[in-house]
Amino acid sequence: MPRTDIDIAVLLFDRITALDAIGPYEVLARVPGATVRFVAVQPGPQRTDTGFLTLVADYGLDDGLAHDIVVVPGGPGTRDLLEDADLLGWIRAAHAGTRWTASVCTGALLLGAAGILEGLSATTHWASMDRLSEFGAEATHGRVVENGRVLTAAGVSAGIDVGLRLAQLVAGDAVAKAIQLVIEYDPQAPFDSGSPAAATPETVALARELLQSPFRTPPGAGQRSAPLSTQ
Amino acid sequence: MPRTDIDIAVLLFDRITALDAIGPYEVLARVPGATVRFVAVQPGPQRTDTGFLTLVADYGLDDGLAHDIVVVPGGPGTRDLLEDADLLGWIRAAHAGTRWTASVCTGALLLGAAGILEGLSATTHWASMDRLSEFGAEATHGRVVENGRVLTAAGVSAGIDVGLRLAQLVAGDAVAKAIQLVIEYDPQAPFDSGSPAAATPETVALARELLQSPFRTPPGAGQRSAPLSTQ
Repeated sequence: MPRTDIDIAVLLFDRITALDAIGPYEVLARVPGATVRFVAVQPGPQRTDTGFLTLVADYGLDDGLAHDIVVVPGGPGTRDLLEDADLLGWIRAAHAGTRWTASVCTGALLLGAAGILEGLSATTHWASMDRLSEFGAEATHGRVVENGRVLTAAGVSAGIDVGLRLAQLVAGDAVAKAIQLVIEYDPQAPFDSGSPAAATPETVALARELLQSPFRTPPGAGQRSAPLSTQ
Repeated sequence: MPRTDIDIAVLLFDRITALDAIGPYEVLARVPGATVRFVAVQPGPQRTDTGFLTLVADYGLDDGLAHDIVVVPGGPGTRDLLEDADLLGWIRAAHAGTRWTASVCTGALLLGAAGILEGLSATTHWASMDRLSEFGAEATHGRVVENGRVLTAAGVSAGIDVGLRLAQLVAGDAVAKAIQLVIEYDPQAPFDSGSPAAATPETVALARELLQSPFRTPPGAGQRSAPLSTQ
């Protein structure tokens, strides 16, 4: 099997939405020859948005590695990072050297804050589409919106789709199709309410309410893992 | 918004396939009132099958908690657990008290080894379907196969679908639809090769090759996180 030596960085941060990062990781890690590195401002444990899970970043911004692909996931934690000069500088510098730079969900807002979406069409989570214009981007509906080497994906689960598109760009159709089969990506949702266009107004209203709900962290969470990173 | 106080355990272990666990977690954590707990034989960091990521389990088998739902994900690490008496005993005891017990991918083999699939129809990752009969289960094709309170899902990404089905069972259609919209689950894969039935023989052969590939762990991985758990 042909190998493609490719280095992929996936950003992590506190209050990330886990699936935003895990979808593209699960696809891209399976490209033969790929190395995936989880990178954070402060390496170590990162607590996800729900408060229920810790993901660990093995690498920091100062690790000095060059990446062929950078993937920037989203989640409520992006709000705390929109003015983080270290992170935005890292995204900008990394992007200068990538073959492709991608976002999932509100990760697009971080690309925007880093100045990468200026003048480009882009997408993000449907509930944040109106934020894109703040960064000079043209909000565009689409599961994956491509502008040359900048790819932005829609909300949360769209990370799987942009992962497959990147696998196709990196390693070709045959490998991307095989990865789709490895992860048995043959979705059969019980409902057709995965986009605001398909959902009823009642579903959209309830989804907005869910997006604003604070999660609770169960008693004891984190006690048996390493201390959480603090920013 | 109505709340459903429900306690959900998701099993973690070394060499788990991350998306198997993260798909159902991402859905179920968003049910208002839900608590999701990641549980492992040895609490703490668990390295995923690719070697590229660490997920942290906050709870151990001895935490003595009762769970309304138990989700057992899959991955190559299941092979080391098929004779783990502590784990199989925990699955069996937890199942006795659950409202629903679910597996994703080769997590079905752990349910089988715990004696839970005896006489039931069940599914698993397509490449492991022939293993189900070892546990007295009837291998059945389906994205999610239901037998009363035992739900088994197909490979990897099918965890999202069984998560939505469980959300529907727990909290009703309106909430499950809203969660589908929150995670923007409107899949648009670039290919139609997500099942062995849809894929060409060449894609199936390449996917089998990928499934057998050893992953490599990048130099430095894990150095900045907590030590890996050993079993």
